[in-house]
Order: sequence, then structure tokens, then C-alpha cells
Amino acid sequence: MKYLSILGSTGSIGKQTLEVVNHFKDRFKVVALGAGQNVSLLKQQIIKFKPEIACVLDKKNAQILKEGLTALNNLKILYGPEGYEICASYPKADIVLVAMLGISGLRPTLAALEANKTVALANKEALVTGGSLIKKAIKKKNQILPVDSEHSAIFQLLCEENKNYLKRIILTASGGPFWETDPSDLSNVTPEQAIKHPRWAMGAKISVDSATLMNKGLEIIEAMWLFEVGLDKIKILIHPQSIVHSLIELEDGVMLAHLGPADMRLAISYALNYPQRLSFPLKPLDLTKMPLTFFPPDFKRFPCLTLAFESAKIGGSMPVVLNAANEVAIKAFLKKQIKFTDIPLLIENIMKLHTPIKEVDLETIFTIDRQTREKAKEWIKKYT
Amino acid sequence: MKYLSILGSTGSIGKQTLEVVNHFKDRFKVVALGAGQNVSLLKQQIIKFKPEIACVLDKKNAQILKEGLTALNNLKILYGPEGYEICASYPKADIVLVAMLGISGLRPTLAALEANKTVALANKEALVTGGSLIKKAIKKKNQILPVDSEHSAIFQLLCEENKNYLKRIILTASGGPFWETDPSDLSNVTPEQAIKHPRWAMGAKISVDSATLMNKGLEIIEAMWLFEVGLDKIKILIHPQSIVHSLIELEDGVMLAHLGPADMRLAISYALNYPQRLSFPLKPLDLTKMPLTFFPPDFKRFPCLTLAFESAKIGGSMPVVLNAANEVAIKAFLKKQIKFTDIPLLIENIMKLHTPIKEVDLETIFTIDRQTREKAKEWIKKYT
Repeated sequence: MKYLSILGSTGSIGKQTLEVVNHFKDRFKVVALGAGQNVSLLKQQIIKFKPEIACVLDKKNAQILKEGLTALNNLKILYGPEGYEICASYPKADIVLVAMLGISGLRPTLAALEANKTVALANKEALVTGGSLIKKAIKKKNQILPVDSEHSAIFQLLCEENKNYLKRIILTASGGPFWETDPSDLSNVTPEQAIKHPRWAMGAKISVDSATLMNKGLEIIEAMWLFEVGLDKIKILIHPQSIVHSLIELEDGVMLAHLGPADMRLAISYALNYPQRLSFPLKPLDLTKMPLTFFPPDFKRFPCLTLAFESAKIGGSMPVVLNAANEVAIKAFLKKQIKFTDIPLLIENIMKLHTPIKEVDLETIFTIDRQTREKAKEWIKKYT
Repeated sequence: MKYLSILGSTGSIGKQTLEVVNHFKDRFKVVALGAGQNVSLLKQQIIKFKPEIACVLDKKNAQILKEGLTALNNLKILYGPEGYEICASYPKADIVLVAMLGISGLRPTLAALEANKTVALANKEALVTGGSLIKKAIKKKNQILPVDSEHSAIFQLLCEENKNYLKRIILTASGGPFWETDPSDLSNVTPEQAIKHPRWAMGAKISVDSATLMNKGLEIIEAMWLFEVGLDKIKILIHPQSIVHSLIELEDGVMLAHLGPADMRLAISYALNYPQRLSFPLKPLDLTKMPLTFFPPDFKRFPCLTLAFESAKIGGSMPVVLNAANEVAIKAFLKKQIKFTDIPLLIENIMKLHTPIKEVDLETIFTIDRQTREKAKEWIKKYT
């Protein structure tokens, strides 16, 4: 029996994780659940999975949750950053699945690693903003198991025999809903159009990231940290069918590809069951259904990709700025304060204002994150 | 430095092997060469690669070779089946590459295994006819390294982490030159059309096998022995681009694919350099060049595939009959004695005449092989 702490349990990945847990009832026991403000769903999850502790965003939500669960005397209810860190380092937990939103995943990831837990990492922003700190906090081999489908694919392809012969990582990207849209039409894109992803069922933030291709940009930085490869060894291919989840190219020119249905539960089940690989009931892949196509990415149409490459090249604190500006931009776009094409414009302008710091500690990261958000909000005020 | 014995050196695989050897001059030394009747090419190879022994088909050819190489006093020239076996078990050889034609590869493969050599196996008929004997002769792990591109692909995909979770092997087939030809036109196919393979440069026998899809049929039986899987775990997909060399499906529904240029030197270099994976100069694969398509095989249009499945199901001596009838049929087709569509007709009729034996020894295999060839030739005489 493996004991799980699931942070971000009411989000898209969190819900799918609980579906996987529910399928493998005899293998997993949930001991901690963390969510944000969706108290009603968290309440249902608590009743069903009976964790020992739970955490929400703030005191108010904790109070609401407590009142709704008077019958569960043994449940400990926490809130705020410290609460999430307690869930992440909860003594009974073997695996901590981190599926929180944006940079909020960083502190719990570090706490879990320091407490010697295995981290099933679905939050790419933790590595984007605090990759160097996470790297230092790792205590054992394969302590981080990626849950992002692309990184899970690469992790699975990079078995012992191949590790020494890696020439290149090729991340595939669906291209999102607009990869064929005329660039001149992109400024009129609505939030409703942007969050309608053609292949994957995901939350709003990551859906917009997929539409701008920033998601792939963040994944590049994530891959650099996870697989210890330079930027020159990472390539992107647009693959609209989302069947090939990623590829590796080896020294002799051979490419190995990971294929599967576009269903996040595959990567979640792999990470939770690792090193075992257990069958999870999914519709089997039928390769005769459609041709697999690949296209080079269009950096002009998707400037977020260029910005991500630039921030990765600069390194240090620059990816923190990229990420914070992007989080603010997406919120503003979803509120219809800025246009779709303003997202990269805002990020580019905010990056230009930043003088990068090479070595960052946790405090610096959060200071830069806060300052960047302020600057980004100012930019939006002035601009709109 | 690895010492090589190359059997079938003047054939397509043999020549490409020597190109690989020539590229990795500092890593390989050829100590033995075996060929059939192409004495003039063998002579050139001997002058260039300076083996210690060489073998040809018969005494006459050995005499011609000897006269052409009077300056090379130290070269030992052999002939016939015993000669090939001596080359295969030559004490100095580390790796024996077996690329002989048809069932003639069986004895040298067994001799090499018994002498504890690593066998780079390009001859599928050895496993098709004598799989059980080869299995018994294996003395160590990975003693056989497949050189067939599909089996090399599967061998590479089946790394330690995946071995225990294999659900299915998916062999890809280009479909050969006629996979879209109207069935009613197949009877008029000429040998010239049949040996013109759309993707791979290969010898005449294997090219016709590719056109009838018997090649894929033989590969199924080869895969059963190499990877110890049942017939129900092997599937075929037509993949006209020949970029995906094969796939494996794992317990959780994940598929892993091996991609590369359609160049046999990739698999040859992999087998010779194993467990290292060294760069060999090939045009890199560009996935944006064409879509990858997959189709179910058409068993009606290609009855050889059905015959191969049937013989594999029956097992024992039946694949020996399948193979011998096929070898005779191809020779007759190339000589324009029978039509393209007569190939499966002949094999089917000969298979019907055979009462299968479950356990076969080497003598039985060659007796059945000889008897089948006689029956096949009689059938052709009567029929034409």
C-alpha cells in the first residue's frame, strides 16, 4: 500500500488522480488532500477518500470546510502555504502529487523532497521558477516522477540502456486551438475559444498556455532541469494528433517515440505505480485511425515560445519573471482586460525591465515573483 | 577491438556490414569471410579486409579464388557447409554476422552459438526453420543480436524496465510494391516489378518476400523465438513510409516506437557495437517531411501472410515446409516459371501434403527441407 498526499486535488489533474486512486483501491491510500477555494468539491473528496489532513487556501475556507465536516472528528484542517507544506511533508505520505497552480507548487515540492518523499510532479512552474533549488533538494534517484505527459514520455523512453546516448529531446506540441489560425485573427481570440483545447481536457490556465504555446516554453525549461540537458538538445515539433507524446533522438540517429491516448490518467497512473506499470482501463490506441503529422513550430505566430527560449538561455531569475508575467497576463486575458496577442507583448516588456540575477534563493524568487506581478499589473493599467 | 566473422559477405547485408566495419576501422577486424558464388567480389573484399580464412560454396569456386589470390599465402580457403561452420566457430571471432540466404544460415548459426560467439543474425530463415534448436544452443544473455530492422527495433525498445510489461509486439511492414495494387492485377506482376522495393535496398529473395508479405510472415516466427512471445501477442501494421521500424505495446496501453531512416546499416551498426550505440553517418530523420500512416494488413490480397500465421500456429516442422516451399517458389517466379500469385498457391498445396512433426532435430529439418523442395519442384512441373 502506498500512502498519498495530493495537492491541488480539486483541479483537473487532482480529480484525474483521484480517479486513478479509485481504480487502484487496494494499492493506494490518500492521507492528505490540498485544494484552493473549491471547498464543496474538496468536502466530497474528503468524505470519499478519508484523508487524515486537508488544506485550503485561507482561514475563511478552512472554517467553511470545518463546519461542513463536523462528523469527521479525526480530520485535521489546515490552511495557507504552511498548511500545504505540512501536507507535502506529512510523515505517513510516501508520494506527494503536486498539481497546484503556478508558482504556488514550488514550496510544497521543496518541502516534499526535503522530507524524502517521492514527488509526482504535475506542476511545471515549480521547476521553471525554482529548478536549481529543486535540483539541490533531491535526495535520491527518481525522486521526482514527472506527470506532465511529455516529460513522463521522455522519462519512460530514457531507460538505463539509452541514458548515455541521448542526443536530443523532442517535445511534441498539439499546437493548441490556433496553430493554423491566420496571425491577423489572433488578436480577436476570446477566452472561450482559447480554453477549448482540441485534444486534452485541462484547466483554464494551462489551456491558455497551450494556445499561446507558452506551455511548451515552460516544458522546455522543465525538461532542462528534469533530464539535465542543455537548451540546444531540446527541439519542439507540432503534432496535432497528440498521439506521440514525445520522442528522444539517440547518438546513432535512432528516434524512440512514446505513443498513447491523450489521457492524463496514463501519466498519473505511471507515476503513482512506478516502477510497476499497471493496466488502467483506457480506450486502446488505434494507429490506423489517422495519419500522424509533424510540423516545425512557428515562432513568429507564437512569440511566447521565443520568450521562453530566451528566458531559458538567460537562466537564473529570468524564468521567474517569464512565469509571473505570464500568470498575470493569463488572468487579465481571461477577465478580458487584455487581448490574446497582448499576452506575449506584456511578458516581453516585463522581461526587458528585469536585470537577471544568476543565483537565486527561495526568498529572492518570491520577491522577484511579487515585483514582476506588480509591474505586470501596472503595465496592464497603463495599456488598457 | 572486436573480431568479426561475416557469412554472406557478398550479399546486400554483407556488403553493408563491410561498409559499417570500414567506418569503424579502429573497432573491428574481419577474421573470416564467407560468400556463395560471387568470387570476384569476395576477392576484392579479401584484399581490402584481410581475413585469415574465407569460405565459398564449392570446390570449384574455392579453386578459382585460390588462383586469384596467390600473393596471400596466409589465407586459408574453405568451401561447403563444413567450411561455413568453421568460419562461424573460428576461435578468434567474437561476433559472427550471419547473412546467408535461406535455410543455409541455420548450421552456421548453431555452430557459432555452440562456440559461444555472439551472433548478429540477419538470416530469419535460421530461426524460422530451427528456432527450437537455436533456443537450446544459446549459452548467454543477448547472445543473438537481431539485424533485421524490425527485430532490432523491438530489441532496442525492450529494455530492462519494459521487459516485464510487454503486451504486444507490433511489426510494421512497408507493404511492398503491391500493397495498393488491384488483386486482379497481381497475377501479371513481373519479377522486375516485384524486386523493386519502394523503401529498402535488398537482395532479390527478400524483395520478393516483401512483395508477397511472406517476409512479414517469416518475421512473425522469428519474433516468436527471439522474444519468447506467443502468436497472439504479435500484430502487423502496414506502414508504407518505413520510418517506424516497429512498436511494442505495454501493459498500460502505452506504445513505444522505434524510428529511423530506412537504412540497414543502422541495425547492423547497432548489433556490432552493442551494448554501445555509436554514431554512423546517415541522413537524419525529418519527421516533418511526410505523414506517418498505418493500415491493417490485407490477408486476402496477401495469402502468404495467412500461410505463415498458420504454419506458426502448427509449429514443429511446418515452418520448415513453409520456408522450403517459399524458397523454391521464389526461384521459379524469378525464372518466370510460375506467376506471382502462384507463390502462395504452391506453398499452400505443399503445406497440405505435410504431416507435421512436433519435435524436430537438425537431421529431420534438413530431410523435410529436401523433401519439400522435391515436392515443390514436382508441383511446378505438373502445374506449368
